[in-house]
Amino acid sequence: MRICIIGCGAIGSLYAAHLGQLEDVEVWAYDLDQAHVDAINEHGLRLTGLSDITAPVNARTDPTRIPPCEFGIIATKTMYTRSAIEATANLFQDGAVCSVQNGVGNEEILAEYVPRVILGTIFPAGHIVEPGVVSQDAGGKTWIGPFPPRPATMEEVRRLADALNRSGMECIAMEDARGAQWTKLIFNAASNAMGALTRLPHGVACDHPDVRRLMSGIVAEGKAVAEALGITLDSDPEDLLDYGREKAYYHPPSMLQDVLARRKTEIDALNGAIARLGREVGVPCPLNEACTALIKGLEHSWEVEIPGQQDAHADRP
Amino acid sequence: MRICIIGCGAIGSLYAAHLGQLEDVEVWAYDLDQAHVDAINEHGLRLTGLSDITAPVNARTDPTRIPPCEFGIIATKTMYTRSAIEATANLFQDGAVCSVQNGVGNEEILAEYVPRVILGTIFPAGHIVEPGVVSQDAGGKTWIGPFPPRPATMEEVRRLADALNRSGMECIAMEDARGAQWTKLIFNAASNAMGALTRLPHGVACDHPDVRRLMSGIVAEGKAVAEALGITLDSDPEDLLDYGREKAYYHPPSMLQDVLARRKTEIDALNGAIARLGREVGVPCPLNEACTALIKGLEHSWEVEIPGQQDAHADRP
Repeated sequence: MRICIIGCGAIGSLYAAHLGQLEDVEVWAYDLDQAHVDAINEHGLRLTGLSDITAPVNARTDPTRIPPCEFGIIATKTMYTRSAIEATANLFQDGAVCSVQNGVGNEEILAEYVPRVILGTIFPAGHIVEPGVVSQDAGGKTWIGPFPPRPATMEEVRRLADALNRSGMECIAMEDARGAQWTKLIFNAASNAMGALTRLPHGVACDHPDVRRLMSGIVAEGKAVAEALGITLDSDPEDLLDYGREKAYYHPPSMLQDVLARRKTEIDALNGAIARLGREVGVPCPLNEACTALIKGLEHSWEVEIPGQQDAHADRP
Repeated sequence: MRICIIGCGAIGSLYAAHLGQLEDVEVWAYDLDQAHVDAINEHGLRLTGLSDITAPVNARTDPTRIPPCEFGIIATKTMYTRSAIEATANLFQDGAVCSVQNGVGNEEILAEYVPRVILGTIFPAGHIVEPGVVSQDAGGKTWIGPFPPRPATMEEVRRLADALNRSGMECIAMEDARGAQWTKLIFNAASNAMGALTRLPHGVACDHPDVRRLMSGIVAEGKAVAEALGITLDSDPEDLLDYGREKAYYHPPSMLQDVLARRKTEIDALNGAIARLGREVGVPCPLNEACTALIKGLEHSWEVEIPGQQDAHADRP
């Protein structure tokens, strides 16, 4: 079986390295970071932290140098979904591509480019330590299922799940994985937006009564949209918030990390997507709208030039 | 006429220096900044920027060294209203105290301590240049009127307005000044909260479609609360937003300045007050609630200590 990881960063590397251990799987990776790609090809891809693996992976910055694959696993940040699949769609003329990205909206884009799509939701997390080395910071399951209107077959979904399970990444194949996706989406919308706007670690944000009330408002809107879309959540996102508080009290949500580093965030695939789908099904989402506007304004502030001032919006006075 | 300025900072100094020019007015000032107080007593209080005035003012850090006054003008930040009037109430046993502070809720506190209260709303702005020197950055009117249930008489309101007008501070005495107060409150709630959360200057925020839509949502909630309270606005706060965009495109709203300097903000007297009064009169204010929660969370982030990290939430990575 030949699999291509599209975007072999912190998340993609977890999948690439685990799968690279299997004798019956040939792992390729498409990534634009030349130093990372070179290190992977020279020394193998190494995982540290919760994992201790070094596995062979064929990494390329040029997708024309990658052979056709049966499966793709796309793990880019959501704002790069289109450019990444545009560059690699040729590899999957008879393949299925699975998104393990945040939020919703990625599978819709994949479906424009490849014949069969798999919807995925994941809990594992990591960060790049140095080129060729990624630390696995969290474990957890991966849920995958066919994505209509261009669904992969259940047989394909089960084959991918089987490979992941054998590699040590726990994966559950489902007929309808949207419940898992929306449970995590709603959790993420509450946790990430609050972290990014208040700059509080997840657990501290949960313990601030006003902030927690706002999180719950964001969750309530998300649940109402899911219900209107006919999606049954896997579990209550409120419980995930509490679970995260328990397990990762001082964890800065990824969107907070993005904001502190002045990187574009994934707001469009999270609160922005809930608000957009809410409009489509007639469910008002004022709080998700507000968070989206605030994060977009914040992103805009990094580009504003104030006449006569070099960096008027440096965050420290 | 003896007047005591309570809190002789950027705003209080504008009133103190203007009034200090009048022969029939003796100006006292209570302020806790010893260097500022000493400079004022030694060299007079000086205004630069839009004004060019140096006037005699009797400044004290110890309120027991100030004689009884007919009028007080309180100009502290709103979170210090109670401590400031507690320290100085004795001076006004037969006096009237006028608030020229932001937001609503200050007059209610004054009414617990002094026999007669004047509600004020102002447009002038300034900043402290050095001890004893304040730059006047904006002119504009001051609107004052009796504050029930402990109203000053209209005769008193007119006397204070007359002194201010003669001093060069344009002042309008009104039977009911709440319309002016709420117009500015609603404008401030939209402009300040957006600036502080997105870190955009006022005009840039107004030109960002998503952010402006959120501002308009905050304004709409404020108007609904004002209407439920029987208050007729002076003008449309939306027009004030546009006027501010025109006149001060790159102005960082004061709450943004507070956030960048990690100073406690006046959110409780602005969006927090709209939300609280909204609850009292049964008008839902989800957007003002959300902004209040986010700013309070942000304030909290400056106090959070992350184990093992010296300053995990330094705003620059």
